[in-house]
Parts: sequence; C-alpha cells; structure tokens
Amino acid sequence: MRVLLTLQYLGTRYAGWQCQENALAIQEVVEKALAKVFGVPVRIHSAGRTDTGVHAIAQRAHFDLPTPIPPRGLARGLNTILPPDIRVTDAEEVPPDFHARMSAVGKTYRYQIWNAEVADVFLAPTWAHVAQPLDTDRMGEAAAALVGTHDFRSFTVAEPEVSSTVRRLDRITVARDGARVIIETHGDGFLRNMVRRIAGHLIEIGRGKLGVDSIRRALEPEFAESRWTAPAEGLFLVDVEYGEARQKAEGRRQK
Amino acid sequence: MRVLLTLQYLGTRYAGWQCQENALAIQEVVEKALAKVFGVPVRIHSAGRTDTGVHAIAQRAHFDLPTPIPPRGLARGLNTILPPDIRVTDAEEVPPDFHARMSAVGKTYRYQIWNAEVADVFLAPTWAHVAQPLDTDRMGEAAAALVGTHDFRSFTVAEPEVSSTVRRLDRITVARDGARVIIETHGDGFLRNMVRRIAGHLIEIGRGKLGVDSIRRALEPEFAESRWTAPAEGLFLVDVEYGEARQKAEGRRQK
Repeated sequence: MRVLLTLQYLGTRYAGWQCQENALAIQEVVEKALAKVFGVPVRIHSAGRTDTGVHAIAQRAHFDLPTPIPPRGLARGLNTILPPDIRVTDAEEVPPDFHARMSAVGKTYRYQIWNAEVADVFLAPTWAHVAQPLDTDRMGEAAAALVGTHDFRSFTVAEPEVSSTVRRLDRITVARDGARVIIETHGDGFLRNMVRRIAGHLIEIGRGKLGVDSIRRALEPEFAESRWTAPAEGLFLVDVEYGEARQKAEGRRQK
Repeated sequence: MRVLLTLQYLGTRYAGWQCQENALAIQEVVEKALAKVFGVPVRIHSAGRTDTGVHAIAQRAHFDLPTPIPPRGLARGLNTILPPDIRVTDAEEVPPDFHARMSAVGKTYRYQIWNAEVADVFLAPTWAHVAQPLDTDRMGEAAAALVGTHDFRSFTVAEPEVSSTVRRLDRITVARDGARVIIETHGDGFLRNMVRRIAGHLIEIGRGKLGVDSIRRALEPEFAESRWTAPAEGLFLVDVEYGEARQKAEGRRQK
C-alpha cells in the first residue's frame, strides 16, 4: 500500500529536504522515524526538494508501507517520534502508481518579508527582514511580467540533471499588511532557487534600486542571470496539487 | 540623564529577565551591550521580572546615561550589539525621578494557546499547545470572576519580599480565532506566575476538568492554591503604562 504524507516543517535547523553527507536533512529525520515504526529501512519520495532553511506548510512525500497499518494511526505514531519542528499533518492511501513528485500538477510558494526598520524577534525565523521601505505597487507591477510560460534560467542555478528551464507561472501577487509583505506564486513547477531569486529581484525593485522593467529583461535569453537571491528564512512551500491523481487518492482516503 | 528603553524579546533562550548565576538572563545581555557602548558598567532597572522562557513585546527598563548621547542613536547602536532575539524598539529621555517599576501604573499580559490536535511548527516558540478542545465560552465566564481587587495568593508562589498579594485586575478576556485562543489581561500589577496560573486554571475549565465556579473558589482565603501553571512559552508581557510619569516623558522625548 502506497501512503502519501503531508508534512509541515520549520526549516531553520535543517540542510533542506534531501539527504546529504555531514548535514541533517528533513528526509533523513522522517525516514529514521519510519524505520523506527516499521523496524526496516523505508525510502520516501517528496514532491520536491526544499533548500537549506526553507520551510513547508504542506510538503508531500510518498512511500510504500512495509507492514499494513492504518494511515491515521501512522501520523500519530510518527508525531510522537519526530522532533517538534517536523509534523505529519495528514497521511492517506494513494493508488500504487501515484508519485509525490511526478503526479504533482501545481505548487504554491510564499515569500514573507518583514519590512520595518527594526527586525521583529517573534517573526525572525520565518520572515526575511528588509529595513528599507519597499514600494509594493512597483513590485506587483514588475511581478505581473513573470506570469505565463517563460524560460526562467536567469532565476535559477545551472543543474545538469534539469533538461528544461521553461516553466509556467499562473499567478504571482505582492500584498502588504502593515509591515508584512507577502509574495505568493503558483505554477506548474519551480526551478532551484527560483522563488528566492524572483523575491530577491522584486525586493531590489521595491527598494528602487532596479527599474520595474528589469524583471522583464531578466527573462530575455541574452540576459546572464538575476543575481539577487532573497534569504531562505522567508520561503515556504505552501501546497502541492495533484488534480486527478489526488482526487483518486481522496476517494480512497482512510481516516 | 535618565533613559527609558522599550525592549522586545523572545524569551526561549533565556532564564528570564533578572540576572542570576549559571544561567543567561536578558538583563545581563542588555547590561553587557550598554557596557560595550559606554565603556563602563551600567545597571538597568526593568518594569518587572519576566520568568524563564517568557517573552516581551514591550518590556521597559531605565538607566542613567554615563555619557550624554542621543537616545535614538543609542537604540540603533544597541541593536547592532544585541543578539537577534532581543531588540530595543524605543529609547527616550525620562525625568530623573522616573522609575521603570515604581512609576508603572498598569501592565498588560497575553497568554497564547494553539488549540488543535497537532502542534504547529511555526507557532511552537510562542504558543502553548493544548490538543484537547477548549470551551472558550466557559473560560471567559470563569475569567470574569477575577476582575476587581482580590487577594491573588492562590495564583502565585510565596515570596518573602512581597508584602501583599492583593492586586486589581481591570480586564481579562478569552478570545478564539480558529485554533488560536488568546487570554489577555490588564491590571495594576501581577504577582509571580500569576498570569500562567490563571491561564492554567482557565485551561482546566476549558477542558471541562474543573467547574466554572472553581476559579471563584480559588480566590477564597481558605483555598490553598491554584495548582495549574500554564507553560512559559505562551506568555507575553505586552505593555507597561506610566500615566502621568509617561506623559512627562513623552513631552521630553527626543527622537
């Protein structure tokens, strides 16, 4: 039986999702918790890697149950083993051909900025601090140019295993509520560092250091790259959508 | 010249406000930062001690400037020295007879509860997690009995230096917004552990473990003590009021 976990995590202490040498990854912590439950090694597959320090409101990861147990009890059991900064918020049965990454049809990311002279001690772990006033109207106007299907290679780092840097962005909004500025974006997939580079570029526009048009120019093929990467602490993977695959899963959900 | 600092801190890493042996206190960290600025030891006096792990949105502390410098520049300078979980949000001149504790006429405290089955990783440092559903109507009804002037000795720990355990509570509210439950209270002064004991007792009432009337009985002199102390992470010193003394201070404020 294939199970899909919904995971919430505060990325601060972790070297991102993916297992690696000499650094603690979220995947490793979750796999160890699963191994403790089942007594055998378990490999999980997430909807995507999140980088060092990046948070998730609803990351998804699937694995195959070594022993049949109800998914609901599994979530409870895992939460007693996992550290408090990683929680399983849901566990459900999915069809055997479901794949957390391959079946995903859309993702939502959010970038949070605390825009005030003095940083806020309570928001520091999850809000990037920008002291200079940001013109969010300019940022929103600039962001609109990113909607659609574009080659986003200026907004990523070269990775040999990624065959195409073309992605479709359905929506990107810049909203202000007092000192809180939130950039939220939805698309079919995101390249490595893409949201942080978009946020970094928009922050430079908001500070008046770059023109509104500069982001459109960054999409042109001759442009080398967009060089402003906003810090990891402001970034959240908000949700992953599965469309048909998910609907099937929901039909079979056991709670 | 006497200066009043407004301080914001995340109490998680600290053994409370007051300096003590073998544990890091917020007072010590701030005094060390002031000593670094002025090159001489500086003693500060806060509006009140906050316990281990308790946070402050606006703690106040006064000290006498060893060297005349503008308060505004002082706040900036201190923030470059202080760790990110302690911020000076304001610094202003006050009259020479002003005293952060003695001049205070009112204080506001807030207790934050995340009331959902699964703890929220992003709220964990500043919200106490209560998994069992809380009946906030019952909690609010019970809390109303605390308003007025009462002997709150059931809601504190015996301290030889405290001459009276009578305090006046002007207001106490219990509000729910989804899974967030907030208890907020304003009074002329609070005894050690008082807000955490009130919150702890109200949580027991909200869980249905104690009757609404039990809080009224806890105020009666023959009642030994209220034994439920809610955890420190949910507690905030929100504000300290100074009335006349503060108005004078505000007239002289230099920014």
